[in-house]
Amino acid sequence: MSEFNDVTVVREANVYFDGKVTSRTVVFGDGTKKTLGFMLAGDYSFDTGVAEIMEIIGGEMDVLLPGSTHWKTVKAGESFDVPANSKFDLVVKEYADYCCSYIEA
Amino acid sequence: MSEFNDVTVVREANVYFDGKVTSRTVVFGDGTKKTLGFMLAGDYSFDTGVAEIMEIIGGEMDVLLPGSTHWKTVKAGESFDVPANSKFDLVVKEYADYCCSYIEA
Repeated sequence: MSEFNDVTVVREANVYFDGKVTSRTVVFGDGTKKTLGFMLAGDYSFDTGVAEIMEIIGGEMDVLLPGSTHWKTVKAGESFDVPANSKFDLVVKEYADYCCSYIEA
Repeated sequence: MSEFNDVTVVREANVYFDGKVTSRTVVFGDGTKKTLGFMLAGDYSFDTGVAEIMEIIGGEMDVLLPGSTHWKTVKAGESFDVPANSKFDLVVKEYADYCCSYIEA
């Protein structure tokens, strides 16, 4: 088990895909932001604003990154980077518990 | 939108009912604990350890409290108390975003 300390948490959930993907926003002392989220089984497509680092905390997902034609399986303890202003596709077969870091330019 | 400030958040999700109910644990400076959770549509039964206050942040749920034979609809902005060492039943028709406070005796 791991923790984020001395943070602000937004109470309201972020809800996507009819609630099959939900997350909570965590804001750090330096103003940086992460979301802790959970995905149920499904096929998802996300657009990025700023660049993101997606870290898988539990479960796994298959990801198709922008510009790639190769699906990659990403498991708990692994992560992947997504460029700003792009789009990535995910397939979650069972579930995925994740932490997404937003990287302001 | 509302926030919890200067808190610790456990990164790993708490997962119940095949992921149809998930939550994140938030620990406050005084050691008290809340969970911020999300429920998809379903029928759920929960056991309490310590007493709980369930506050609905978004959506709604029908609750059958211990000792009651009357289902009550609880909506966003409303809350209900659950005694320690008891059991309560919920029916979520669409979704429910909630905050559960754990009240140590």
